Amino acid sequence: MKMINGGVCAAKGFKANGIHCGIRKSQTKRDLALIFSDVPASAAAVYTTNLVKGAPIAVTKEHIADGIAQALICNSGNANTCNANGIEIAEQMSQLAALKLGIGAEDVIVASTGVIGQPLDIEPIANGIDELADGLSCDGNDFAAEAIMTTDTKKKEVAVEFEIGGQTCHMGGMAKGSGMIHPNMATMLVFITTDAAISPKMLQKALSTDIQDTFNMTSVDGDTSTNDMVSIMANGLAGNEEITDDGESFAVFMKALNTITVHLCRMIAGDGEGATKLLECKVAGAKDIQTAKITAKSVICSSLVKAAMFGADANWGRILCAIGYSGADVDVNKVDVVFQSKAGEISVCENGASVDFSEEKAKQILLEDEIDILINLNDGDAQATAWGCDLTYDYVKINGDYRT
Amino acid sequence: MKMINGGVCAAKGFKANGIHCGIRKSQTKRDLALIFSDVPASAAAVYTTNLVKGAPIAVTKEHIADGIAQALICNSGNANTCNANGIEIAEQMSQLAALKLGIGAEDVIVASTGVIGQPLDIEPIANGIDELADGLSCDGNDFAAEAIMTTDTKKKEVAVEFEIGGQTCHMGGMAKGSGMIHPNMATMLVFITTDAAISPKMLQKALSTDIQDTFNMTSVDGDTSTNDMVSIMANGLAGNEEITDDGESFAVFMKALNTITVHLCRMIAGDGEGATKLLECKVAGAKDIQTAKITAKSVICSSLVKAAMFGADANWGRILCAIGYSGADVDVNKVDVVFQSKAGEISVCENGASVDFSEEKAKQILLEDEIDILINLNDGDAQATAWGCDLTYDYVKINGDYRT
Repeated sequence: MKMINGGVCAAKGFKANGIHCGIRKSQTKRDLALIFSDVPASAAAVYTTNLVKGAPIAVTKEHIADGIAQALICNSGNANTCNANGIEIAEQMSQLAALKLGIGAEDVIVASTGVIGQPLDIEPIANGIDELADGLSCDGNDFAAEAIMTTDTKKKEVAVEFEIGGQTCHMGGMAKGSGMIHPNMATMLVFITTDAAISPKMLQKALSTDIQDTFNMTSVDGDTSTNDMVSIMANGLAGNEEITDDGESFAVFMKALNTITVHLCRMIAGDGEGATKLLECKVAGAKDIQTAKITAKSVICSSLVKAAMFGADANWGRILCAIGYSGADVDVNKVDVVFQSKAGEISVCENGASVDFSEEKAKQILLEDEIDILINLNDGDAQATAWGCDLTYDYVKINGDYRT
Repeated sequence: MKMINGGVCAAKGFKANGIHCGIRKSQTKRDLALIFSDVPASAAAVYTTNLVKGAPIAVTKEHIADGIAQALICNSGNANTCNANGIEIAEQMSQLAALKLGIGAEDVIVASTGVIGQPLDIEPIANGIDELADGLSCDGNDFAAEAIMTTDTKKKEVAVEFEIGGQTCHMGGMAKGSGMIHPNMATMLVFITTDAAISPKMLQKALSTDIQDTFNMTSVDGDTSTNDMVSIMANGLAGNEEITDDGESFAVFMKALNTITVHLCRMIAGDGEGATKLLECKVAGAKDIQTAKITAKSVICSSLVKAAMFGADANWGRILCAIGYSGADVDVNKVDVVFQSKAGEISVCENGASVDFSEEKAKQILLEDEIDILINLNDGDAQATAWGCDLTYDYVKINGDYRT
């Protein structure tokens, strides 16, 4: 599994672009992205579980019901959610892209992200579609990744090269996600492309399986958003024999996908709104996977743990507290907690009770920008990882006045 | 139901005191509280659901298993939780109080609040017990209320006068609670006293019923703490006929209790860590109580809603979002949302979609320090209320470096 450049354009036959069309007031911020595959691709997606769903979710679901897509259009600055004409606008976005690209509107994935409950004007998109499509290129991935950002401070892209049956394949992805990030699909937008050949059914299986341990284990603020989706298009141009069932090739594909998704999860959590630190909580020694997952997520979601990490305060009592209210069946008297970072590691709690540790060394470890919280439940062999970030002044600042 | 002064000393035969004994470094902050009833009282309590439970919880449970208590001792500055000798220390606290007061240690309710996982030294308590008990008085309620505060900025006390069977009764309470406040009992300490005569069984029933709609509907930060309890002592000195079953007298008692608890809930939420605003979310038109409760709690717990309220930003989309992921079975296309405060009220969402409203007027309403979020699900007759607060810079500041 070799890391490469190129994001969503790393795979053969995929082009992308991103422009400023005018949905956002700022002239310098791109707000409309397009991804296009030279040939129709197998397509799969997973969606937010929020009952309030953005109109693009409904339209995309319908469009890829047949497992095929060839293009993806996404705007930022407006979520096109809770608007009376939302479905109509999302359909128009698909049609504009399809018409210009010479494909069917039902082969377009459509997504929107931004503020909820403000009508989305189709005009800037209609006016911008020529520039957007004419500018499609094999190195347009950066522009596309930029165009889907909202409160993100960093573009989020990744790509890998791998082999299936002797054929070199590529997979790349981009993500948007900073606030409203919480387990349960998805509170983020992630678009993945690959030139591997795989049937729509196996593609959906790969994605639905993978997200259980990746995007569904990532939380910034506990708010499951209304618009989020992870989609993947596989156009088969790598020339491998199409993956149609479980087996070695599928396992390699899953591994590539997991490399992409874990990378994007870490980028999303580390760039959580206002975040100064990426938190990775690894729970080991659980009696089963579910216990490990519930425990890891509870710790990563605790406002008090998050605030303590911001302050580089080794307040492990809050970690035990979060384990205790998680709902998982855990013997708290067996729990060990270790903090780890580039600066070293330190044990702060053994068997559920305090151990004597150097506050100074703990502080040094917690001042790093990537912190691992290692929890051993000493009650079995199952493990799980969850990703999150610290809670900071800037989270409050960003969300105290987002719209105005 | 007449509001009166006196807090936990409002009821006949209850004395209280609070001193600085030295658990906290600050010489000016009282850290040890005592409440004493002239005669043994019926006693009931509810406790945190966190698996990690403070040692005082275990000791108190045992002590009031017989439904009788006569004194309550509580320290702040240290939670006496996750310490190897926690039970021993909590027992010693009871014994010190009992010995000095001439009662049995098994009639003492014991509680601790503060940092988790640091051994609690019994010495300052042993040294302070004489001063604490000798200073008990009928107007010591303020000192006691002060002594249980941690990050609270305000003392929380309330008392009412009411009549049962022609006899004048009194009930008063004090509370501590600012961070780690979340539904499911309890993340707070609340101590209530009354001179009404009521059997232990009916007292427990009254308390267990009441908290479902009061303390279990209050959230500051989603963290269910390890130490919290609500306890009530009823010494019968008002001279009413003892309440031993349901009926009119019990109903009056319940009403008095609810007046006390709602008042304290509002004080706790309004004084949430870093809070500048009390949020009250009233959900009406739900198909059943459970739906109303789940919806109200989800809104009050959303970090994004809380941050928007801090910024006086009428970002109602976040309210719909929180309803959508609450898990309640709600038709989001029927939901209406209104903001209300002393400055007026404004409708911001009807039938799940935006309505044209004056941002200026909305801002004016949201700049007040008590905001009502009124949600109508238009799907039935059930209703529920939840209390919370805004998310502010100061929440992060307080929790980013609490211990050091």
